[in-house]
Amino acid sequence: MNSHELEQLLAAFKRGELDTLEAAQRIKNIHYEDIGYAKVDHSRATRQGFPEVVLGAGKTREQVVGIVESLASRAPNVLVTRTDEGTFGEVRNVVTEAEWHESARLIRIFRDRTDLGVGTIAVVTAGTSDIPVAEESALTAETMGNQVERIWDVGVAGIHRVLAERALIQRARVVIVAAGMEGALPSVVGGLVSVPVVAVPTSVGYGASFGGIAALLGMLNSCASNVAVVNIDNGFGAGFVASLINRKWPVLESGA
Amino acid sequence: MNSHELEQLLAAFKRGELDTLEAAQRIKNIHYEDIGYAKVDHSRATRQGFPEVVLGAGKTREQVVGIVESLASRAPNVLVTRTDEGTFGEVRNVVTEAEWHESARLIRIFRDRTDLGVGTIAVVTAGTSDIPVAEESALTAETMGNQVERIWDVGVAGIHRVLAERALIQRARVVIVAAGMEGALPSVVGGLVSVPVVAVPTSVGYGASFGGIAALLGMLNSCASNVAVVNIDNGFGAGFVASLINRKWPVLESGA
Amino acid sequence: MNSHELEQLLAAFKRGELDTLEAAQRIKNIHYEDIGYAKVDHSRATRQGFPEVVLGAGKTREQVVGIVESLASRAPNVLVTRTDEGTFGEVRNVVTEAEWHESARLIRIFRDRTDLGVGTIAVVTAGTSDIPVAEESALTAETMGNQVERIWDVGVAGIHRVLAERALIQRARVVIVAAGMEGALPSVVGGLVSVPVVAVPTSVGYGASFGGIAALLGMLNSCASNVAVVNIDNGFGAGFVASLINRKWPVLESGA
Amino acid sequence: MNSHELEQLLAAFKRGELDTLEAAQRIKNIHYEDIGYAKVDHSRATRQGFPEVVLGAGKTREQVVGIVESLASRAPNVLVTRTDEGTFGEVRNVVTEAEWHESARLIRIFRDRTDLGVGTIAVVTAGTSDIPVAEESALTAETMGNQVERIWDVGVAGIHRVLAERALIQRARVVIVAAGMEGALPSVVGGLVSVPVVAVPTSVGYGASFGGIAALLGMLNSCASNVAVVNIDNGFGAGFVASLINRKWPVLESGA
Amino acid sequence: MNSHELEQLLAAFKRGELDTLEAAQRIKNIHYEDIGYAKVDHSRATRQGFPEVVLGAGKTREQVVGIVESLASRAPNVLVTRTDEGTFGEVRNVVTEAEWHESARLIRIFRDRTDLGVGTIAVVTAGTSDIPVAEESALTAETMGNQVERIWDVGVAGIHRVLAERALIQRARVVIVAAGMEGALPSVVGGLVSVPVVAVPTSVGYGASFGGIAALLGMLNSCASNVAVVNIDNGFGAGFVASLINRKWPVLESGA
Amino acid sequence: MNSHELEQLLAAFKRGELDTLEAAQRIKNIHYEDIGYAKVDHSRATRQGFPEVVLGAGKTREQVVGIVESLASRAPNVLVTRTDEGTFGEVRNVVTEAEWHESARLIRIFRDRTDLGVGTIAVVTAGTSDIPVAEESALTAETMGNQVERIWDVGVAGIHRVLAERALIQRARVVIVAAGMEGALPSVVGGLVSVPVVAVPTSVGYGASFGGIAALLGMLNSCASNVAVVNIDNGFGAGFVASLINRKWPVLESGA
Amino acid sequence: MNSHELEQLLAAFKRGELDTLEAAQRIKNIHYEDIGYAKVDHSRATRQGFPEVVLGAGKTREQVVGIVESLASRAPNVLVTRTDEGTFGEVRNVVTEAEWHESARLIRIFRDRTDLGVGTIAVVTAGTSDIPVAEESALTAETMGNQVERIWDVGVAGIHRVLAERALIQRARVVIVAAGMEGALPSVVGGLVSVPVVAVPTSVGYGASFGGIAALLGMLNSCASNVAVVNIDNGFGAGFVASLINRKWPVLESGA
Amino acid sequence: MNSHELEQLLAAFKRGELDTLEAAQRIKNIHYEDIGYAKVDHSRATRQGFPEVVLGAGKTREQVVGIVESLASRAPNVLVTRTDEGTFGEVRNVVTEAEWHESARLIRIFRDRTDLGVGTIAVVTAGTSDIPVAEESALTAETMGNQVERIWDVGVAGIHRVLAERALIQRARVVIVAAGMEGALPSVVGGLVSVPVVAVPTSVGYGASFGGIAALLGMLNSCASNVAVVNIDNGFGAGFVASLINRKWPVLESGA
Repeated sequence: MNSHELEQLLAAFKRGELDTLEAAQRIKNIHYEDIGYAKVDHSRATRQGFPEVVLGAGKTREQVVGIVESLASRAPNVLVTRTDEGTFGEVRNVVTEAEWHESARLIRIFRDRTDLGVGTIAVVTAGTSDIPVAEESALTAETMGNQVERIWDVGVAGIHRVLAERALIQRARVVIVAAGMEGALPSVVGGLVSVPVVAVPTSVGYGASFGGIAALLGMLNSCASNVAVVNIDNGFGAGFVASLINRKWPVLESGA
Repeated sequence: MNSHELEQLLAAFKRGELDTLEAAQRIKNIHYEDIGYAKVDHSRATRQGFPEVVLGAGKTREQVVGIVESLASRAPNVLVTRTDEGTFGEVRNVVTEAEWHESARLIRIFRDRTDLGVGTIAVVTAGTSDIPVAEESALTAETMGNQVERIWDVGVAGIHRVLAERALIQRARVVIVAAGMEGALPSVVGGLVSVPVVAVPTSVGYGASFGGIAALLGMLNSCASNVAVVNIDNGFGAGFVASLINRKWPVLESGA
Repeated sequence: MNSHELEQLLAAFKRGELDTLEAAQRIKNIHYEDIGYAKVDHSRATRQGFPEVVLGAGKTREQVVGIVESLASRAPNVLVTRTDEGTFGEVRNVVTEAEWHESARLIRIFRDRTDLGVGTIAVVTAGTSDIPVAEESALTAETMGNQVERIWDVGVAGIHRVLAERALIQRARVVIVAAGMEGALPSVVGGLVSVPVVAVPTSVGYGASFGGIAALLGMLNSCASNVAVVNIDNGFGAGFVASLINRKWPVLESGA
Repeated sequence: MNSHELEQLLAAFKRGELDTLEAAQRIKNIHYEDIGYAKVDHSRATRQGFPEVVLGAGKTREQVVGIVESLASRAPNVLVTRTDEGTFGEVRNVVTEAEWHESARLIRIFRDRTDLGVGTIAVVTAGTSDIPVAEESALTAETMGNQVERIWDVGVAGIHRVLAERALIQRARVVIVAAGMEGALPSVVGGLVSVPVVAVPTSVGYGASFGGIAALLGMLNSCASNVAVVNIDNGFGAGFVASLINRKWPVLESGA
Repeated sequence: MNSHELEQLLAAFKRGELDTLEAAQRIKNIHYEDIGYAKVDHSRATRQGFPEVVLGAGKTREQVVGIVESLASRAPNVLVTRTDEGTFGEVRNVVTEAEWHESARLIRIFRDRTDLGVGTIAVVTAGTSDIPVAEESALTAETMGNQVERIWDVGVAGIHRVLAERALIQRARVVIVAAGMEGALPSVVGGLVSVPVVAVPTSVGYGASFGGIAALLGMLNSCASNVAVVNIDNGFGAGFVASLINRKWPVLESGA
Repeated sequence: MNSHELEQLLAAFKRGELDTLEAAQRIKNIHYEDIGYAKVDHSRATRQGFPEVVLGAGKTREQVVGIVESLASRAPNVLVTRTDEGTFGEVRNVVTEAEWHESARLIRIFRDRTDLGVGTIAVVTAGTSDIPVAEESALTAETMGNQVERIWDVGVAGIHRVLAERALIQRARVVIVAAGMEGALPSVVGGLVSVPVVAVPTSVGYGASFGGIAALLGMLNSCASNVAVVNIDNGFGAGFVASLINRKWPVLESGA
Repeated sequence: MNSHELEQLLAAFKRGELDTLEAAQRIKNIHYEDIGYAKVDHSRATRQGFPEVVLGAGKTREQVVGIVESLASRAPNVLVTRTDEGTFGEVRNVVTEAEWHESARLIRIFRDRTDLGVGTIAVVTAGTSDIPVAEESALTAETMGNQVERIWDVGVAGIHRVLAERALIQRARVVIVAAGMEGALPSVVGGLVSVPVVAVPTSVGYGASFGGIAALLGMLNSCASNVAVVNIDNGFGAGFVASLINRKWPVLESGA
Repeated sequence: MNSHELEQLLAAFKRGELDTLEAAQRIKNIHYEDIGYAKVDHSRATRQGFPEVVLGAGKTREQVVGIVESLASRAPNVLVTRTDEGTFGEVRNVVTEAEWHESARLIRIFRDRTDLGVGTIAVVTAGTSDIPVAEESALTAETMGNQVERIWDVGVAGIHRVLAERALIQRARVVIVAAGMEGALPSVVGGLVSVPVVAVPTSVGYGASFGGIAALLGMLNSCASNVAVVNIDNGFGAGFVASLINRKWPVLESGA
């Protein structure tokens, strides 16, 4: 719902065309749809620039399908993260455009492919094992209207590899870096570019990597000042933030 | 140094006007100045969009003064963070424009006040005790060429306070939120806006706040997808990242 | 056993109708029944206002059945938490009124439905995935004689959702809030009400949520002063404490 | 402000006696007073049953005095926690009824001594060193209109001590237990009573007590089901929650 | 090997009946037998009062059988902990007296049942789920020549249960207490007796019990001074230490 | 108080010479003396074999003096740990036999020097910096009636040093080992002796020693089965447990 | 590629035989081969003295086979760690010399067996369960051109076992020690030798070993000054570092 | 003492010139000198290649002076780390050659300056604040007979700085890298060289650097295989290990 709708509703209330109870109920309904186990947030596109994204983990298949159906009826693009192929099958039964992305374990409905960004988003990984998380970032960013450049396996122990890709990285408006183990790559990339770096620690590693804590701490303590961090393995979040950074400003009402 | 200088130097090398050793030395010197205990990084403005910032903690007064002197001879604006008033006195002896900011414990040389941003940056705190960290963010952002809006003490236990400032917050191109204790404010603010939120956990709190860990974890696990996080009490980093997000794109050579 | 019984027994001992050993044995037996692997605590209803609740985890099916049988012979209502449907089958063989609650993984015998509360208990979740823990709270509270209001999926990133339910929440005598990830909802709810909030961190989340630690720390550091916390995923404990808060005072002997 | 005031204001707005901007401003002002470094929350008494309490730590003396002055002009009772005697001196200059409590490091203005509770609150400590935290609880509870029973030094290694006080403890409507080291006392007390126990871990101990973490974990894992926990050394929070538990229900408008 | 053997060997070396190399080899062989993947320590009975005990976890079945065979050829009693029934089957093929103890997951060869203790050892658990760990303690102590008294399910939330068993506990020369969750029972028991208490934290619990850390910390911080602690779930270690405490003193050569 | 006194009192109660209230009060008084801020536990000598020991940390000087005065009126030997020389001065004013031990920061009243042990207690340190903690153990053990053997600075990096003292260590009935850093010495000593080893981790070390956590974990995971552990820097606790291990058995009434 | 190749390429570029783009591409190609999901680092032998080693964990079988094929075409010796027998089968299909090592879960191609070391490398374990990690070290060291001495099961609780092997250990140029539980063996071995000790903590243990953290901390805090540490279970890393320590110096070009 | 002395002593014992007790005493005395609070380890030079180094922290000035005096009477070079200038004054009173090094807080007696290394040792820091730790490494290495190359302030956020020093670093036989914050420099340096890298995490940083834990974890998880790690701020240990790596092999008796 856009601002216009709400203003009309309030004006009607002032004119006495709606009593208080009815006005309250309508405002409430506009914002979200209550489907029992979830309150599907239809106003999120207005507030945050993209419809609510469904975190598949911890929900039953029926719940995922129900929420997707509700979202897809109002928004052109929908994402379900941390899900599985079985759930995808059921989602496709109700929304035929749905795609399955194996590496990122992600369902996507991608009907509106307008480019909303001022530049490109580079997505970089330290190693091969970081690709699934990075793919989640890349797919999120694409679905939110961005051009994405993928650069895989340029970790710091072979510093010539990232230096060889420097030109490509330096062209981006924002860079996402996914790395596990010691999580050092964002610091090096951060030092090479003059744009924000969104760092995603991954749980790649063993022993004292503690499921991504080592990488997370490394990134939080980055000596490069242009690095901000999201949760371990949160490729989606990195893609989301990067998309908002890259978005044309000011955002026009019609685009929401 | 801008790209033009480097190209000329390389061309001269190719023409044989410089031997390899001399070319290497010059390139090295252009990039940084070696003053013994530090390699002052003069190319950082080119690479990162702002000169190297001096972290005062862990350096002697003599070291801080020496580095500031080196930086101030080339860059109009300089910041020293986590320092003290005594150091400020000595810095002012060599750079008279230096200012002291008590709350943020920060020295600033602020000679170029060009506005480089596409919009404003809102800096928000959960409580009164978070102000010193937030001031560090605000001063950093201003020094890097941004308009800043300060909004203090709107923590979530009195949710009407942040809702009352909603309009102000929603006008910003990027929002910085500083919060200690449970660190919940970035999630609420994140849900209200369609721009990136840079969250700064502060060490405000006691007991199980563990010097900011509770707030840090809260922010990393934010259910709002547009939140990215910097280190505990890293007001400077938040201001730096937010400045790069707000910067006009593409960056013009002359602005660097 | 009520106080009257004990007084009679002690009087008999004083009159010499019981020797010391026999008196000691009887007092001991009144309090609990020793069934080998467990000492079933029949005096708990007197001391704590509800019979001992069986934690299913870590016990064999035989042990659970044996304990339930012992409890159900003396108390009208019995709960078994953290159990499974197979165990339920065996419990129903010996107590036919037993019910199975899938979402909460809980067996309930609910024969006495007297309302013992002064008001209602609101049970609120931040997300859909927190429902199983919240259901454990709600079922516990109902079984202990309370009216319960369920409010699902009103997490802080869509603050309008919890505000829309404000009136419902504010009518309760005590509020239970279950939330994972950053665990911010209890602070917001705490700020809206003038009654105690019992916060239950859930293990919902990933990465730096560390199985509920992030939510737990967030709740312990809540800036709302009316929040008290129970263990991660301890829906039962929250329901139990809330029931005692809501209980009519003073408690009459016959009610125990 | 009570509900009546707000209804009148809204009615006036509907009748057109106030334009939108003015109505918004007034509603905003009623709720809190903006004094620059803080937004003093005057509506908290309405929402939470007690005026905002001032956490002294992390605020300058000037800030504390300013906030107290603002609060004391509207509310009869005011608390400042985690403060010092010097601040007390300055507070007394502006509010002469202010009292200093050395053990709890707390300033109190206690002008309204109405009893608001249905029963008494027992405050129990495991050791002598836990008394300062427990005193903070006791003073908070008294200031919020409760009768308090203090029971010091009955830790579990001399179990006869707590058993000797059993009758006193069992008369209370709610029990606060402060304990450091292994934090076992709430479990024992919890097993003796049929009312809620609010457990406060203290930082008393050394080595592997880790500043109260051992006690905190002990209390969160209590095998007594009626225990809820607040932050380490948060005597104030425990007193606040216990006061709300003990409060007469329903709360009458005039009492707020 | 006893001290006498070694003295004879050294005397022979001095008399020149053995050259240096041969003497060294013999001394080495007396102490342990090298079977490739393990150096079976036959001198442990001399040094520690009981033959080496085999930790089954992390060894292949073949390795366990090989080590047991080597030990059983020299020592009457042998224990294998943390093993499984399949391994037991193979062990019984080579040592027919071997017994399987399901609850403790332990293989025992128990051919010498001499009583070596000065008193009894009481083994106490807080709950039913702690029994497997406590059984490991009890079986270890019995196998090492002690009389054991088992007392199950007397946790602190029903303090009357442990008080009812007080006399039994107070008769013991040493008490082992196994408890999970908050691990408070050793403090209570420690306060009741004048002998050492060996506390075993168990991994029983969930959420913030962190696999036994809460119980471990509780026990390390016990306010009872007579409590010493072993590793989480280390029932064997507790039984071993308790056996040495209970052992008659001085130990006679022939008993080793 | 000995058992005889209590039996007389109960007999008098049965004969009707005391009413219930009076009997209860007397029993209560026999057990402990309530001096306001503390309940001095006079029955501890009966229950635990040594009077209550005063932990100086966290108590005011007045409190320490008051408790010592109460204890010293009934018990010949008294200890105050973690205290300072100023407090000692005030204690000596009321009990002239009091001694000050600088290294261990301990006050001792040592009037009864009866030997209560079956053997000696060896106290061993890994380094010079561990001596203060070990002295606390040694003084505690001596005050509780034991012969103590001190062996300083035999850490494992110079294994010949501990081997050189092997004979001395092997003569003891129980060994206390204090070590910081990696805490490896108890494992080596444990392997050399056939008696219990009480391990005390010390906070000696830096960096990843984390104030004694490294040593604590090392000792809890000792591959020697005869090692039990007390809290970090808890020299007193180690001395207390070791004393109970060394005590003659059975304990005679008159000795308590 | 050796240094000579690069010099020729640069000379050609200077002579104008290559344009900038082509030179850049060739330099890039020499260094690594981009196979999509990985950038195989062919210059690592030059830079680090051994070709890139493949960490099998987190890669698909197809990825492992592809990388091995690429590496084996240029380097005589190749290692794949943390892999499984199924992957081995597919690797052997493309490189028939591949060997499978069950205990270490490692694939090896070992075509060049030149001895590159100045002395031997001793690999020592504390227990039988540490052998798999130690085998990974030993195989790595052998594959990198070293003579290896294996010494298993000489943990510190039977100190005579390691002392018996002292001569063998003291002959080595560098010692690798793998130990779990308390991780004390490196300190003891470190004290016996005058060469570097590379310590590998293993995840062997339970409870408070926390998957190797206890051993890791023990090793980092070693009181022997000649101990350096690698990640938990990182047998490969230990073997790699030890190989470089043992390598003849200076390294000749042809050897790389 | 060298091996020759010991052989003579043993021969004398065999010839009967010494009785057993006397032989044992002499062997013991040769190894270390017992000065009460310490056993000064004179055999360490034989066993470890350098005399015992004195850790000043945790020792009294008298203890430090006593130990230094004992060591300096037998060894030409002595180090005291983590000490202060006052202690230095007293040490110089007894050993006039003693030097004070302010930055590293280290006392050195440096009388034998023989070069014992096969190559140079490069000591590298990420920042200016890491210099004190790196100086401790450099001074240790020099005192142990090595040529040292110092390279300061080449952290990864300005990757051109370390690349500019590449040639210098690549000439070394072993590289020490000291870094705080995210600790990424060892990975980058490790990828540039074919020799061992000894990584020293420093406590430089704030917030989530947790006193060096972030850097420590980063280094333990380094994706460069040639990195081994020492304790946080353990510059001495890094210098010691690096010296042993660089030492000529085989070591000649006379050099010890």
